[in-house]
Amino acid sequence: MRKLLILLLCAALVACGGKQANQASGAAEKVPEQKVYKWRMVTTWPKNLPGVGVAPERLAEVLRKMSNGRLQITVYGAGEIVPALGVFDAVSLGNVEMGHGAAYYWKGKVPAAQFFTAVPFGLTAQEMNGWLHHGGGMELWEKLYARYNLVPLAAGNTGVQMAGWFNKEIKSLDDIQGMKMRIPGFGGEVFEAAGGTAVNIPGGEIFTSMQTGVIDATEWIGPYNDLAFGFYQVAKYYYYPGWQEPGPTLEMIVNKKAFDSLPPDLQEMLRAAAGMINEDLLSEYTARNNAALEELVQKHGVIVKRLPDDVLRELRRVSEDLVSKLPGDDPLAKEIYESYRKFRKDASAYTEISERAFLNARAETDDLAQ
Amino acid sequence: MRKLLILLLCAALVACGGKQANQASGAAEKVPEQKVYKWRMVTTWPKNLPGVGVAPERLAEVLRKMSNGRLQITVYGAGEIVPALGVFDAVSLGNVEMGHGAAYYWKGKVPAAQFFTAVPFGLTAQEMNGWLHHGGGMELWEKLYARYNLVPLAAGNTGVQMAGWFNKEIKSLDDIQGMKMRIPGFGGEVFEAAGGTAVNIPGGEIFTSMQTGVIDATEWIGPYNDLAFGFYQVAKYYYYPGWQEPGPTLEMIVNKKAFDSLPPDLQEMLRAAAGMINEDLLSEYTARNNAALEELVQKHGVIVKRLPDDVLRELRRVSEDLVSKLPGDDPLAKEIYESYRKFRKDASAYTEISERAFLNARAETDDLAQ
Repeated sequence: MRKLLILLLCAALVACGGKQANQASGAAEKVPEQKVYKWRMVTTWPKNLPGVGVAPERLAEVLRKMSNGRLQITVYGAGEIVPALGVFDAVSLGNVEMGHGAAYYWKGKVPAAQFFTAVPFGLTAQEMNGWLHHGGGMELWEKLYARYNLVPLAAGNTGVQMAGWFNKEIKSLDDIQGMKMRIPGFGGEVFEAAGGTAVNIPGGEIFTSMQTGVIDATEWIGPYNDLAFGFYQVAKYYYYPGWQEPGPTLEMIVNKKAFDSLPPDLQEMLRAAAGMINEDLLSEYTARNNAALEELVQKHGVIVKRLPDDVLRELRRVSEDLVSKLPGDDPLAKEIYESYRKFRKDASAYTEISERAFLNARAETDDLAQ
Repeated sequence: MRKLLILLLCAALVACGGKQANQASGAAEKVPEQKVYKWRMVTTWPKNLPGVGVAPERLAEVLRKMSNGRLQITVYGAGEIVPALGVFDAVSLGNVEMGHGAAYYWKGKVPAAQFFTAVPFGLTAQEMNGWLHHGGGMELWEKLYARYNLVPLAAGNTGVQMAGWFNKEIKSLDDIQGMKMRIPGFGGEVFEAAGGTAVNIPGGEIFTSMQTGVIDATEWIGPYNDLAFGFYQVAKYYYYPGWQEPGPTLEMIVNKKAFDSLPPDLQEMLRAAAGMINEDLLSEYTARNNAALEELVQKHGVIVKRLPDDVLRELRRVSEDLVSKLPGDDPLAKEIYESYRKFRKDASAYTEISERAFLNARAETDDLAQ
């Protein structure tokens, strides 16, 4: 009788176990995986630098809210975990899951990456977004970064920058001969080919270098950031237009393995949040730059001037030549160059009768504005 | 003995039941509310019209993926549930949860709404985003639409449009006197004040009206959409720049009660998805317009011309006068007008030395391009 009793008890318990198992799997079908991903995002920006430095924090906050805390990203400024120029490798090697910066910082290792930030006399912010998201650019960027186990996303833009700060007036091409200017990336190579001397130093050291005369000129971003850096104290002339960076795209890079480990809903959130911040950061610069420019002129007596035609023409001539040589023997780099060049030709043809024609018509009738 | 057996079995089953209960509640604590929201989004666009009509579908798809199917939005074209111009009321009354369209369609009921789409000689797409998201514009838009139980979100932009299609050449201001043109919104009022006759007919009826001579001219969007509508078959002259709509923002409107009923994570997804599509649609137009323009010119012999200076100046003079009268006695409308006017003044001052100065420098050196 005892044996029978034990047998029956076991049968009952097994049945319960089975029921539990079913219930568990039933629940799993309804409810998405609730695992919490605690990620680290390293950036090339000084911690909380207005604009570019704050955007990654905003990005992380939106993702935390959308994911109900399932995706928690901690943002680190340049040098906190890795130096500014170590971001690419840190994410590529998987030491951290994410990074935020600008592709042209990696030109030493990936020359073609520069096409995905800015090319002198190249695409504006609106044209860059058009090329990346509806002109085949994004697919080429993904192909290029796949070599380094990275998934790239466009995540911010500063709009047309300024040509930079100069400690003397630029009257003609002669005035930039031998001039020492802090100008990184492709713009630097062009400046050198045009007779100047390009120096590349981190943002934090620019002010002192100008003050001590190590450099005669520098470019940084635009009025909003340049005012905060106090460049008006070490240079009097502020030149435009920003021929070297007409609409630099900022990048969010994600380690491929980390990206693939996310469930589809979180992957989609990453893409949407990047798209949102891509517009939001450009909007912030568009809204803040003018007030800063006014303060620079009114309060600090900065002289704003346009680069002379002969300087602009020489910089254009040289950059067209240099950019055509950039791809070298890399077939993918050639493909990227051709795609970028064709898009610029096509898009600027329409920009001629849309954006440019409108801005000129608005300016030419501004005397009638109230 | 039997009784004991049954007692023991019951005890075992109760124990199991308890275990199940605990496990269930344990899971419930971790998991966010899994309620599924099945919403309807009505639009002012012909179903699946390239660009503006497809954007809402893309928006719904992204939200479905991000929410793991918790937010399922069905998109309806103009006339499927409510007519194009009935979208505002349908969402305001809560008959449907969402809508997609353009704020200036509601000018009859809400004159100040036009500031949130486009103002003649007003802000470009980039400047509109700057004003809305970092210049105080969005807060004013929310304040205005709160009167109608609506939450507005910027959700798309076409960029600078074309001035339109004309069946004869415009040599001077005299040529538009008495001319019958399909031009809605604020642009129509300006066209009338400049001597023309503005007609407002839905997109679907424009072609026939041009063909039968009911109207002499029409504006629609830009090459990408205009080519599809076949306007080149009924008009030879295609004029620029789109003075009437320099960067029209499209709106996503959500019924306030419906919006408040969403959990915070889904509300955040709505905002991020709107921000994403706001950039994505502009990118699509930027990438598609030129190929369409080329086809119009090369394949269909369309003549592309710039409006004469005296026409542009008169349209500017008249619009400055009309827009200043738009607010009437509504204090909020006055506040919106002042905010918009100040932002245009400030932003265009920086646009002068950034966007405009760069586009001109690029164009003036294009002879050096490869």
